[in-house]
Amino acid sequence: MLAVVLDGKIEVREVPEPRPSAGEALVRVLMAGICGTDLALLDGYKDFKGILGHEMVGIVEEAPDPRWLGARVVAEINVSCGTCSLCREGHRKHCENRGVLGLLGRPGAFAERLTVPLANLHRVPDSLSDEEAVWTEPLAAAMAVAEWGVRSGDAVIVLGDGRLGSLVALGLQYLGARVEIVGKQEIKLGLLEKLGLRVNRGEPRPIHPWVVEATGTVSGLEQSLCWTKPRGTLILKSTCHDFANLNTSRIVVDEIRVIGSRCGDFQPALEALQSGRIPVRRLVSKVFPLTKAKEAFLECASPSVFKVLLDLRDLD
Amino acid sequence: MLAVVLDGKIEVREVPEPRPSAGEALVRVLMAGICGTDLALLDGYKDFKGILGHEMVGIVEEAPDPRWLGARVVAEINVSCGTCSLCREGHRKHCENRGVLGLLGRPGAFAERLTVPLANLHRVPDSLSDEEAVWTEPLAAAMAVAEWGVRSGDAVIVLGDGRLGSLVALGLQYLGARVEIVGKQEIKLGLLEKLGLRVNRGEPRPIHPWVVEATGTVSGLEQSLCWTKPRGTLILKSTCHDFANLNTSRIVVDEIRVIGSRCGDFQPALEALQSGRIPVRRLVSKVFPLTKAKEAFLECASPSVFKVLLDLRDLD
Repeated sequence: MLAVVLDGKIEVREVPEPRPSAGEALVRVLMAGICGTDLALLDGYKDFKGILGHEMVGIVEEAPDPRWLGARVVAEINVSCGTCSLCREGHRKHCENRGVLGLLGRPGAFAERLTVPLANLHRVPDSLSDEEAVWTEPLAAAMAVAEWGVRSGDAVIVLGDGRLGSLVALGLQYLGARVEIVGKQEIKLGLLEKLGLRVNRGEPRPIHPWVVEATGTVSGLEQSLCWTKPRGTLILKSTCHDFANLNTSRIVVDEIRVIGSRCGDFQPALEALQSGRIPVRRLVSKVFPLTKAKEAFLECASPSVFKVLLDLRDLD
Repeated sequence: MLAVVLDGKIEVREVPEPRPSAGEALVRVLMAGICGTDLALLDGYKDFKGILGHEMVGIVEEAPDPRWLGARVVAEINVSCGTCSLCREGHRKHCENRGVLGLLGRPGAFAERLTVPLANLHRVPDSLSDEEAVWTEPLAAAMAVAEWGVRSGDAVIVLGDGRLGSLVALGLQYLGARVEIVGKQEIKLGLLEKLGLRVNRGEPRPIHPWVVEATGTVSGLEQSLCWTKPRGTLILKSTCHDFANLNTSRIVVDEIRVIGSRCGDFQPALEALQSGRIPVRRLVSKVFPLTKAKEAFLECASPSVFKVLLDLRDLD
């Protein structure tokens, strides 16, 4: 089968068909999305080698439980052991022995087929198109910010007008928060404004109860801490910076919470997509066939681009 | 009156008697405690100039409400305006216009008398000695760690065997947590063990659900993050480091909460002291008269010393 393989550089090439292990389904990929983390992997993040891709929608072709056969599905990306202490405490996303689709020890979704444990699958409601369903994973991650206590009516400022920041802002707005987004790309900010987001182009108010860092830059991180109110919460959403020099004295004196946030639950994201109130299709900048994955990755580098999708539905 | 004045260096000298403003009491100081923050102020922290001291017990000599006259009291250290947005939200300790006794814009308690708003005073139960009551402020700060959700039975590791770390460990143990303390001073660790704390002299387990950083060093901070479990909480208690290079990628991937913690509520601390289950008197290394404050500060520098108190009850 064809797959996008990272091994120092990326290549679209033939690889052996995967075979499902016990408890796993074989899923034929319909569409997949390119994420900021994929771009970081290309730059050497995590030293990942193998088939990229963790945002997808597909069709179950083989499964140990026949009720899944033919189902259109999205897949949670963390494959957990179920037995380590973190799994037993309910933190399966943090499993000590986890694999992560296209990110850690498991082949990803930029391929004709991949194998996924049945436990990771969610059925896609018929009302959602493939182009919408492929947003489930990133939207779930974006909406995970809310699990730390953002409530309807709360004021939130999001730093970063990229794929992640935009989706966090739209997800929190869907949940009822009063969201402001701060960014640098006028072309993106203009679109986000048309999608109903409040864009802050001036100097934001100095302090906010909720701040989300989604720039992935050290300067964004430092700025976001400056903007967090005493007793406020700064949520770190980008994994792409490694070490940052933080004013820890400020964190202590102003009793700030700095919280890391990674993956989210799929069910609320599927419901949000079904509501039609998150206009994800308008965030799609371009769709490429799998065979043009290299061009698709290049396209992502343009500052005006939000989301680039790979379409695998018509490979022949 | 006599006071310990910091102006580049410390001096014990005569200063004018303070006069209470509207709503304030005049308090004669009985005993006062030297805190790590006082030592940091000597080293230039916050550029503070004036009368030091924020841990105290005293007697009300003048008050706008006669019911306070003669009362033995402890005083909350943050003097708030009551009208700014943070005060109105209930975060008076974070008042935008606050003064802090002996720390920020207000004279402190290393003096024969100081003025304090009545709103900051708490009566000391008769069952508590002056030597115990003087611990109210630091114990309140130590126990404030629990407000972020430490529950009875939770495992907590505290880094730092100094004044602050020891008190955090004792306070959390009093609240029912399973506490381990890690430190470097065998003489201190030995005493803490005698006081019923579990001391970890080996390599602690790699990950903990609750970690408290109370070393005030950058290396302690970095170590404490390494020891925090995925989805765990790292509480920063020391204000003495300014900037630290934190592995923010770790915070995000493992969804760690890093929370700053400063002052705490006095009432739970007074109750804990009344219970007799926190052996604060055994943490007192030495007591000096106010006139020997310089010697008292020098004594604090010794690695084997926990708490040094100033006694102002017999100045003549």
